Amino acid sequence: MARLKAPQRRSQLIDTATKLFAKSGFAATTTAAIAEAAGVTEPVLYRHFQSKQDLFIAITRKMSDDTLKEWQSIIGNIDDPAEQMRRIAVEFPAHIKRMEDAYHVLHGALATSREKKVQAVIKDHYDQFEKFFIGMVKKGQDRGVFRKDVDPMMASWQLINMGLGYALIALNLGRFEHFSVEDSINFIVRGLKN
Amino acid sequence: MARLKAPQRRSQLIDTATKLFAKSGFAATTTAAIAEAAGVTEPVLYRHFQSKQDLFIAITRKMSDDTLKEWQSIIGNIDDPAEQMRRIAVEFPAHIKRMEDAYHVLHGALATSREKKVQAVIKDHYDQFEKFFIGMVKKGQDRGVFRKDVDPMMASWQLINMGLGYALIALNLGRFEHFSVEDSINFIVRGLKN
Repeated sequence: MARLKAPQRRSQLIDTATKLFAKSGFAATTTAAIAEAAGVTEPVLYRHFQSKQDLFIAITRKMSDDTLKEWQSIIGNIDDPAEQMRRIAVEFPAHIKRMEDAYHVLHGALATSREKKVQAVIKDHYDQFEKFFIGMVKKGQDRGVFRKDVDPMMASWQLINMGLGYALIALNLGRFEHFSVEDSINFIVRGLKN
Repeated sequence: MARLKAPQRRSQLIDTATKLFAKSGFAATTTAAIAEAAGVTEPVLYRHFQSKQDLFIAITRKMSDDTLKEWQSIIGNIDDPAEQMRRIAVEFPAHIKRMEDAYHVLHGALATSREKKVQAVIKDHYDQFEKFFIGMVKKGQDRGVFRKDVDPMMASWQLINMGLGYALIALNLGRFEHFSVEDSINFIVRGLKN
């Protein structure tokens, strides 16, 4: 395999680790297996990541960044916060299918890890989503489109819980049609308006 | 340890396995460790459960039964479906703390297991909750308390996702106050009514 520059190698190791953690689980995947799948020696891997935990942290940070970039791009041309929410929700089933491996890694760690550093980076992931949606709800309230008596924090968690619940059931139990994400977002938006 | 009758032994083994799976994870816990913690030999354990998977299935079935019994008892004297939902939601933070170990086992399996039998019993768990809440929404619609244009299936998943999201973040990241379950249920009930 051709020699990659440091940022490309780092990115390749993150992608390889995401696939292997998703397939075999975080605990069962060794750094040796990740190095082998990436076509490098373990010392090369350790030059980029000191531990499996560091790889997990990098995967989660990449996932937060990629998701927020995707959402910013979806809402880029849309002015109405209600329509912004609807568009993100309608794209959500495709989004989780595209990022299925990363979601498996994140949800597996959320549900099973007791390591403080792992929990801290997961908390940070949801904090960023919380902040993102709180901003959207407040914008709607400032413009008089949304009711002012709804707590933006609570409303942001209506959205996050819908996405988290949908992704968990869809990706792990293979039920993508158990409820309509579009109907759900319309229900929440109506609650924000009326 | 005194010799227990079969149903008591079975129940004790389920409780012991729940604690150990929650503490050390399903994969890392051996049937030998469960037998030892329960004060029996492995052959005695295997008389009740053929595999760790069978123990997981029994834990999940018990959790479904216990939860539905608890909810039936909470709503027993309440006639109004909106008030039934509110009471279950208000009790929910205490409910998940009380059943914390079983929730860890269920959520860990939901997020990480690829075994068909495990996924089937988890699917059955959520199917029961779905049916329970669909019944409650339909009752409200029949009585004219809830809007008839809301899909009861979608509404039941608003409730389930709120609980699933809350439990995952609260139990794993230690955030019990990130949003108010009571405010959330009031938001959903208002959406069902108006």
